[in-house]
This record gives sequence, C-alpha cells and structure tokens, in this order.
Amino acid sequence: MEVAASFARLSSPSPALFSVMNCVKHSNPNRIKLSFSNSRCASICAFAERSSGSNTEVFLDHAKVETILDSVKWDSKGLAVAIAQNIDTGSILMQGFANRDALEKTIVSRKATFYSRSRSSLWTKGETSMNFINVHDVYLDCDRDSIIYLGKPDGPTCHTGAETCYYTSVYDVLESSKEGKEERLAKTTLYSLEATISKRKVEAETLPNGKPSWTKKLLLDQELLGSKVREEAGELIQTLLDNEDKGCTASEMADLLYHSMVLLNLKDVSIEEVLEVLRKRFSQSGLEEKNSRKKT
Amino acid sequence: MEVAASFARLSSPSPALFSVMNCVKHSNPNRIKLSFSNSRCASICAFAERSSGSNTEVFLDHAKVETILDSVKWDSKGLAVAIAQNIDTGSILMQGFANRDALEKTIVSRKATFYSRSRSSLWTKGETSMNFINVHDVYLDCDRDSIIYLGKPDGPTCHTGAETCYYTSVYDVLESSKEGKEERLAKTTLYSLEATISKRKVEAETLPNGKPSWTKKLLLDQELLGSKVREEAGELIQTLLDNEDKGCTASEMADLLYHSMVLLNLKDVSIEEVLEVLRKRFSQSGLEEKNSRKKT
Repeated sequence: MEVAASFARLSSPSPALFSVMNCVKHSNPNRIKLSFSNSRCASICAFAERSSGSNTEVFLDHAKVETILDSVKWDSKGLAVAIAQNIDTGSILMQGFANRDALEKTIVSRKATFYSRSRSSLWTKGETSMNFINVHDVYLDCDRDSIIYLGKPDGPTCHTGAETCYYTSVYDVLESSKEGKEERLAKTTLYSLEATISKRKVEAETLPNGKPSWTKKLLLDQELLGSKVREEAGELIQTLLDNEDKGCTASEMADLLYHSMVLLNLKDVSIEEVLEVLRKRFSQSGLEEKNSRKKT
Repeated sequence: MEVAASFARLSSPSPALFSVMNCVKHSNPNRIKLSFSNSRCASICAFAERSSGSNTEVFLDHAKVETILDSVKWDSKGLAVAIAQNIDTGSILMQGFANRDALEKTIVSRKATFYSRSRSSLWTKGETSMNFINVHDVYLDCDRDSIIYLGKPDGPTCHTGAETCYYTSVYDVLESSKEGKEERLAKTTLYSLEATISKRKVEAETLPNGKPSWTKKLLLDQELLGSKVREEAGELIQTLLDNEDKGCTASEMADLLYHSMVLLNLKDVSIEEVLEVLRKRFSQSGLEEKNSRKKT
C-alpha cells in the first residue's frame, strides 16, 4: 500500500533564524508530498515537492518587514495587543503587548517577544524559564492593532507553572460556595472532554467502587474499548456509503472521536501529541522529517 | 447495547439570562449522565444527574459579581483586554477592550460585550449584525488584566464578513511577490488540515487531470476511503492491544483522524459541527437535549 498525500504548507518555524542584517531566511516548503510505506508505524517517507524543485529558501526582505511594522496601528504608547496561541490546541497561552521592536524581533527570531510595560523593555517569553514560544506564524487583525503569535510552547507559559495564564473561571467563582475554588484552565470542547476522561481514569483508580460510568467501563476493559472504536468507525463509514444525512455523520464522528480519546488516555497520549504528528507530517520537508525520525 | 457516560460539566450558556436586579440564574448541570440506545444515529437519551437530584439552578450573587469586577486590574483608562474565542474550534474571533460595565454585562447576559474606545460606549458584538458571541465561560488571567470570553458565535465575527478578524499572515505577506496575497484565516493544526482537504476537493472537481494526491484519490473513491478509515481504526486499536509505544498510538490516531476528516469533507461536515455535537452531548440536561432533538 502506498499513501501519497499532497498538502499545502502548514506554517512551520525555522529552528535558527537570526541572520545577517537585512536578510532573514526561513524554510518554505510550499508544497509537500508524502509517501507512507505500510510497515505500520515504522516508516513514513516524506519528501518536499517545492515549486522550484530545489531546496528553496525564502529570504525575508527587511524593507517588507518595515512595511508591515509601519502598517500596524500602534497606540499612543506605541503598543498593540499581542496574544500567544498554541498552534496545535488553540489554547490562548498568554497576552501581552508588543511595540515595533518586539514585533520585529518576533518575526525575525520566531520566539514570541513582548514589550514589558512595567520594566520598559523587550522581553522574550522563555528568556528566563527557557519555555520559549516558537512562533510558526504571526497574524494581524482587520484593524491592524491586534496581533496573534501562533506558536508552540516549549513548556508551561504562565509564571505560576500553569500551562496557560487563564485558569480562573468567573462562573466557577460565582457558583462556588467557598473562596478556594479549584482552578480550571480555559479549555475548548475537545480538551474539556480530554480532561473529563482523565478525571474518570483517576476515579477508576482511586474509587474502584464508585459510580460506574461508560468511560470508566471502557478504561477498565480494553477488549470492549477496542470493539467500540471499531464499531464506531464502521458506523461512520456507513453514513457515507448509505448516504445518510449530515447530522448522522457528525454524530458518528463524535462517537468515534470520544472512544478514540479514551484509548489515547489509556496509552497516555494527548490530543496535542496527535496534532503535533499531523502538523509535522504536513509541514516538514522530507529531509527534516527523516532526520527527526533518526533522532528518535 | 447501552452507552452510559458520566461527564463533568462542560460550561454551557443559558439562552435567556437577564434577570431581576441582584440575582441572575443560569443552568448548572454539574454532572450529566448519558444513555445512548443503539438505533444508530436515531436516539440519544440523555438525562442530567445533578447533585440535588432536581432541576437545580444557580443564582448568581450580585455581591460576588462585584467582587470579581473589583478583582480585575483595570488600567488607567478603566479597561482590560478582552479576547473572544470560539469554544469549539479555539479560534480567536476578535479582541477588544472591556471596562467594568462591559464585563458585568457579559457575565450577566452571556453575550460578549466590549467597551468601544472610539465611541466611548458599551457595545455588544452582534447588536447590529445579529452575530452575537454566546458566552459559555469567562476567564481571567493570572495578572487579572486580561479576559477570555469563551463562546459560540452566531455567525462571522469580523465586520468584513470573515469568520474571525485575523486573516493577514505576516509571513504570507513577506513571502509574497505580489501585494495582493490571498487572505488566510489564522488556523490551528486541525483546521489547517481541514482547509487543505477542502482545497483538494475543489482541485479534484476543477482540475480532474491535475496532479493526483492521496487526498484526491480518497475523495474520488468512497470504497477506498471507507476501507482506509476501517483499517486505520484497526491499527489504532492494535497499538493498545499489542502494547505498542506511545508514538505508534499518536501516529495511528493521526492517520485515523486524517482519513475521517476526508470522509467528513465528502459529507460536507465540519470538525466544528462534530465538536458541537460532543459539547452539547456532555453539557446539556436530558430535557434540553430531548427538546433540541424534537425541533430538528
């Protein structure tokens, strides 16, 4: 079996980007073609198919960088809001402010860099903690006064050690009878479900006689879990082959996703790790991918 | 077959929340237990299992809301950054500023509300376009000067009609030889892949003789696609049963996800729709879920 997929570039960061003066290079695999051989999980052979057919590198034009910096609507203090977001999970990691130098440094270095209003100086997230945010892309909003640093964090972003800086839910506080309500990271749907499955695993281990739940049953019975994943995949396929309505497909995909996520939990694999695999598969050049496999 | 799942609350918005004076109610299905009967895609029977055993409603205490508003570190102009994020996809929809009144109105009304610095007045996103952002949760950051409105948009958020306000990639601009580079929404990994699959579908339809790719092959051959989804599900299960390493599980899940997403594309179903199904399943009360099914 051969799998050959051609994908558009998902943005990817360059490992070493500071370069001389006016000219900054980074890799630009515009188009990527992948061949997978079928020794399951053993070999993925990917090669880059670039427009020029060679190992093209794009040189960032300093004049163009200046034009972009000029296009930002800096406020009266010379600042714009800069939001760092995890490229795989979508989590908002932190929010700070950028001035012209901070944005330029981020674009060039691909490390999320902000302007500290309290210290009146630039700071690159991670310069102390080493938990850098490796920037894959930078987005400006329609008004050009708000910036997203879309990147991959090396570790927890918050100075408290939390994964992100957003762990205080207003409604949790309002609903809590006590002051010391448990902190809960802001999570979107997939990651809330992932957290719930993890909680069930802990309960299954610590409260074996507690209330049974479907998730716990699956966690405790690998044969059952395997048969459910297989069944849900079959049902999803059937919605296609039987031309069932969209709602059925969405519902069956939801079932498949949930049951697969229970399996991931048992294997101690996060959705983020899965997404990282997908991103790397579809953004790296073949050489990079091959080298990264040699290292692991 | 019976599927009974017990999940912790995923935050959910209340449809009508403005209420008298000091007391605001919203639904609080603390614990939810779901039973699915197996007439595939036909009946999902869910019931809420709340701590009190009854249809508990939580009344927001005005004094507590005030305490939260007091705890925010408003800047010299009385503002804090407010970021609206899609609860299902994680997309950052827009960023504005909130003052005390805007945050209070958001907490109470569950519609994302900001303070317009240009008009010096409150504005609720959607009051003109009707594309409200229905807020499921509100998060404060560690420094208490940055806010996330985690919600579900009724439609495109940007005044330009774009799904979000972030559609200008700095690196796209830098790499482009022309000025008029195609706009590209900021998308995290899963949604970049989804967009790429959509692109392949358009190519398959408009350029039937164009370069073949695995995605195009799958899009054009439902039998092949079905067999691949089944195969990848089997391989994922095998990593569990054979106790293969974590990396294999992540890789097989990535395969399953990708192939399932091609199937979703053929059925014109977005990942966001699937996540919405998951969220509703695990956050609604049984009655709400039953009623919503009757309507559709």
